[in-house]
Amino acid sequence: MAKNLIIGQSGGPTAVINASLAGVIDYALTSEAVGTIYGMIDGVEGLLQKNIIDLTAMFEHLPHEVNRLKHSPAMFLGSCRYKLSGEEEEFKRIFEILNEYNIGYFIYIGGNDSMDTVKKMSAFAAENRIDVKIIGIPKTVDNDLNGIDHSPGFGSAAKYIATCVREVAYDTSIYSIKSVHIIEAMGRNAGWLTASSVLARQDNMPAPHLVYLPEVAFSVEQFLSDVKEKLKSYNTVIVVVSEGIRDKDGKYIAENGCSQDGFGHAQLSGAGAYLKTIIENEIGCKVRALEPSVLQRSAGHIASLCDVNEAFNLGSVAVKAAEDGKTGVFATLRRTSNKPYCVEYGTESVDVVANREKVVPRAWINAEGNDVTEEMVSYLRPLIRGVAQTPYRAGLPDYIDIRHLDITKQKYKNED
Amino acid sequence: MAKNLIIGQSGGPTAVINASLAGVIDYALTSEAVGTIYGMIDGVEGLLQKNIIDLTAMFEHLPHEVNRLKHSPAMFLGSCRYKLSGEEEEFKRIFEILNEYNIGYFIYIGGNDSMDTVKKMSAFAAENRIDVKIIGIPKTVDNDLNGIDHSPGFGSAAKYIATCVREVAYDTSIYSIKSVHIIEAMGRNAGWLTASSVLARQDNMPAPHLVYLPEVAFSVEQFLSDVKEKLKSYNTVIVVVSEGIRDKDGKYIAENGCSQDGFGHAQLSGAGAYLKTIIENEIGCKVRALEPSVLQRSAGHIASLCDVNEAFNLGSVAVKAAEDGKTGVFATLRRTSNKPYCVEYGTESVDVVANREKVVPRAWINAEGNDVTEEMVSYLRPLIRGVAQTPYRAGLPDYIDIRHLDITKQKYKNED
Repeated sequence: MAKNLIIGQSGGPTAVINASLAGVIDYALTSEAVGTIYGMIDGVEGLLQKNIIDLTAMFEHLPHEVNRLKHSPAMFLGSCRYKLSGEEEEFKRIFEILNEYNIGYFIYIGGNDSMDTVKKMSAFAAENRIDVKIIGIPKTVDNDLNGIDHSPGFGSAAKYIATCVREVAYDTSIYSIKSVHIIEAMGRNAGWLTASSVLARQDNMPAPHLVYLPEVAFSVEQFLSDVKEKLKSYNTVIVVVSEGIRDKDGKYIAENGCSQDGFGHAQLSGAGAYLKTIIENEIGCKVRALEPSVLQRSAGHIASLCDVNEAFNLGSVAVKAAEDGKTGVFATLRRTSNKPYCVEYGTESVDVVANREKVVPRAWINAEGNDVTEEMVSYLRPLIRGVAQTPYRAGLPDYIDIRHLDITKQKYKNED
Repeated sequence: MAKNLIIGQSGGPTAVINASLAGVIDYALTSEAVGTIYGMIDGVEGLLQKNIIDLTAMFEHLPHEVNRLKHSPAMFLGSCRYKLSGEEEEFKRIFEILNEYNIGYFIYIGGNDSMDTVKKMSAFAAENRIDVKIIGIPKTVDNDLNGIDHSPGFGSAAKYIATCVREVAYDTSIYSIKSVHIIEAMGRNAGWLTASSVLARQDNMPAPHLVYLPEVAFSVEQFLSDVKEKLKSYNTVIVVVSEGIRDKDGKYIAENGCSQDGFGHAQLSGAGAYLKTIIENEIGCKVRALEPSVLQRSAGHIASLCDVNEAFNLGSVAVKAAEDGKTGVFATLRRTSNKPYCVEYGTESVDVVANREKVVPRAWINAEGNDVTEEMVSYLRPLIRGVAQTPYRAGLPDYIDIRHLDITKQKYKNED
């Protein structure tokens, strides 16, 4: 007897979380084990309020919309930053609602915190002999998840950052005056995204000239010395720093940029903005600080096709795992070959991923702490390959929005 | 008897200045009137130092490289911000060099200042009966040039800004908490780029919710009141402001953001960063300020195909005008129909464009000064149409670089 499936999304956006959702829908629509596919609006927080939509009704006659979903950034179902309290009452409430909807399969797409939700829910189900399979699908632009070769979402953000570096390098190369550009990449504790900027170097492009990851203690003195050295050989020096660079005492460099605004209130600048001031004062050349901010995680128009396809495939892997009776696991991938690039899909216990961060190994950063090694480049290179087939209409990306499908307007009732 | 042609680029980068260069090369390579095509490295500043390369030798056997040039942002030949002194000695020196290279056609791609160069040089040539045809090709992301329906480079920057707004809107829509995002667009005196953000509104997307152009005096009080009003109806409010917004006394809003850094030095924030602080202090919700900065003008990967093609066509129009004996003119286009969108190419005297800025008519901004009218939208809509065929390699835009063609390394000798 088929049981129903419910899926939710949680945490911050990436370009390919919806590709995983599309993969789940695509596979589940034809699965004999799955009855209706439900979506929780705004993750478990919405689930607790029974904010649930029928994805089967929404998509079963619209296969092209599933494809559009595959290429749309952010989160079709909305998100939450809700962490389960761990109290029995809350678990009971969740499983009561799941029972009411005859749910046999619960799939949750998210990062560390979401995998913690999968872990706690599957433990509760096991203890209470509740037959709901609980499966996670990983996502994060930071690439800081354990138990997977690389996180879905990372490849697209990496492609965005490398593309930015290339375009900034072209932009700045036109003048002969000395200048420094500082690009600040996401990743508070893990420097994967910052590292990915070095992919811009193909075709003898020297940018980025310097790269600073949060895994190595940052020294402002060394930074200034590095920049001065590079300025001897290059007119335009492009530096990529992680938002999370810290000094040897663990203090965020961005905190130094704490300045006073016109009202006398404290104002926290980014690390890049702070280093800009340092260079202006100590070197005196032209400096720009660029902070792509949320643009790097939601730029569906420059998503990596490799990333989109892997995220989509992990969706089907998750449903298959649930069908096969697995629970407390997440869909994962393992790199079996780098040249040619090949991956193998499977599942892994959420114990290895929940609440732990995977940082860049020190051996993949150069001795000086201002660049990465060839091993890192080989690891990164395949992940940005391929150009995603972004749908366009009237010259702009034609992303899907839950409002388009006109079935639920609960969340957006004020926004039409 | 065929005369040689020389071409240069000047001013700030756009995504399609090289498309115009490609158009010039493409047309001139098969023109019987044109002998060798030369390029000046770094505009007239490089010309004065005889920093000249042979583009015919570089491209005549590589037609696919001309196509790659068409889709590469920034400036293949480098740029300068050099304004002719107006002294006779300097003009004499320029025309001596042109004579040495047997130049009959001088083409200059640039903005207001560059058209001023075309004007002065053609006047000097006329006075001194020197037979060199001097032709301009306009470019600027700001769209502030007179004598042309819209400037090449603008459509691509407009598409970038509208795409950013869509992606930020998707990114922010996932949470239920109240937030404000402020995106700062280029255009110090002309609000065209800021206005183009409203193209993001297709498919009932309400973003951007508020738009402030430099053509209308900016009131911080009114701004706060506008944002508060929008927050009543929307969870996430997206505001686009021009970098050049000024108060009723003409003082830049960005100047208010002048704050002190850790050293006690003054630090000039952008308008967006300043307004972020204002909202944090006065409304207290979550706020982000995004400044795409140079990314908006060099994002070849999201260039408008309409813009690329028009820039390319203007290249051939310029050579044709020179062949036809015109001088002191620039290649231009006139919109003959909006639905369907059609343009007519031609030339116009540089007198109408040099050193004057075209700002947004007040009638195209709404009465409240926080949005644009339907007339503006109709004007903008066709300019971002079509997806440019960006070449990719290993997952990244495969733009051309003068270093690739390996003929001159003068400028980049230290950078390889």
